[in-house]
Amino acid sequence: MVEKRAVVLLSGGLDSATVLAIAQSQGFDCYTLSFDYGQRHSAELQAAQRLADNMGAVEHKVVAIDLRSIGGSALTADIDVPEQHAEGIPVTYVPARNTVFLSIALGWAEVLAADAIFVGVNAVDYSGYPDCRPDYIKAFETMANLATKRGVEGHHLHIHAPLMRLSKAEIIQQGTQLCVDYSQTISCYQADTLGRACGRCDSCRFRQQGFKDAGIIDPTAYKI
Amino acid sequence: MVEKRAVVLLSGGLDSATVLAIAQSQGFDCYTLSFDYGQRHSAELQAAQRLADNMGAVEHKVVAIDLRSIGGSALTADIDVPEQHAEGIPVTYVPARNTVFLSIALGWAEVLAADAIFVGVNAVDYSGYPDCRPDYIKAFETMANLATKRGVEGHHLHIHAPLMRLSKAEIIQQGTQLCVDYSQTISCYQADTLGRACGRCDSCRFRQQGFKDAGIIDPTAYKI
Repeated sequence: MVEKRAVVLLSGGLDSATVLAIAQSQGFDCYTLSFDYGQRHSAELQAAQRLADNMGAVEHKVVAIDLRSIGGSALTADIDVPEQHAEGIPVTYVPARNTVFLSIALGWAEVLAADAIFVGVNAVDYSGYPDCRPDYIKAFETMANLATKRGVEGHHLHIHAPLMRLSKAEIIQQGTQLCVDYSQTISCYQADTLGRACGRCDSCRFRQQGFKDAGIIDPTAYKI
Repeated sequence: MVEKRAVVLLSGGLDSATVLAIAQSQGFDCYTLSFDYGQRHSAELQAAQRLADNMGAVEHKVVAIDLRSIGGSALTADIDVPEQHAEGIPVTYVPARNTVFLSIALGWAEVLAADAIFVGVNAVDYSGYPDCRPDYIKAFETMANLATKRGVEGHHLHIHAPLMRLSKAEIIQQGTQLCVDYSQTISCYQADTLGRACGRCDSCRFRQQGFKDAGIIDPTAYKI
């Protein structure tokens, strides 16, 4: 039997934990990748490590990259995270973040001779982010296959975005069927040092509503 | 007059110094970007800083990113740099390096509201690298315009690769016309702590031959 390897972007959040479970259910040996990119707290990095360990990733890597130095987002720069949802692209958008993350995943995939990258982007709940749209993912895949030695040699790398068209409730239902322990995941933009969520930011609101709509009890630890 | 801003990838080598001069000659205000990515020596980072200062870049940034952690290249991992040129893709190829660098440049370009990125890739002398080909650059540009807030708002980002089809001799001739001081640049894969080149690696050989073919005296400091 040929080993199927995949690099899975794992943020420590609900979406990427679900993606890891989906990749595993499709028979992939999963190599998980997180980024220490100057985000405001490290609770999500700890969650990612815990998820990789508990869910049986073959290897988990954390790559350090200083995105703060280019600035421009409430998640990495000195801008307040808003508690009310506004129209348009949110200030929590980090310029080119998914592109940077997918590029590093691409490099690791080449080293591993893996032809799959899994990413938890979603065009439904987070439609404000340009780098979460299907056209973007398709264009990245096209570029990626021209970028690498492996692509030149005729292998085709596929970017899997299995959550793309799912609602938050559908993501939670699918993950629950695959036995994802959501109490181990963190979605909050400003979790405290104990990993407890604020319950008020956009990300917390989407998550709370998702559990409600899915009819599944929310296991998240909240500060309030 | 509208200010034209460009992000210029500046490695400290001959090619990128020429690209900076070309971007300036086209009227761009240049923001130069280097990467501390676990390369074996820091001589090229020092050269990049010196070039940015001396050539009048508006701002120079060094972004740290640990590409060693994903391994796979003689430039970042524990693999000997070869002194003889071999066929095919060289072991000095860093998986997805240009993609990672261009992605970070894209993020900075968005923060700066710049619609131009200049990169010194070249398909003639370094044809072994897949991420130096015109098709790759075109695919990156397409992806980039789908990736960002600025792209969504209708601005078009252009990836300029002005050296793409030039020989090393033609690059040196063009840079010399634009008054680039090549004694300040470093091309060697294994320069010593004084910034002196080995004179034997692929990069040194291409450079030496380039000066010879251009009929211009080579100002490089060599160890031997």
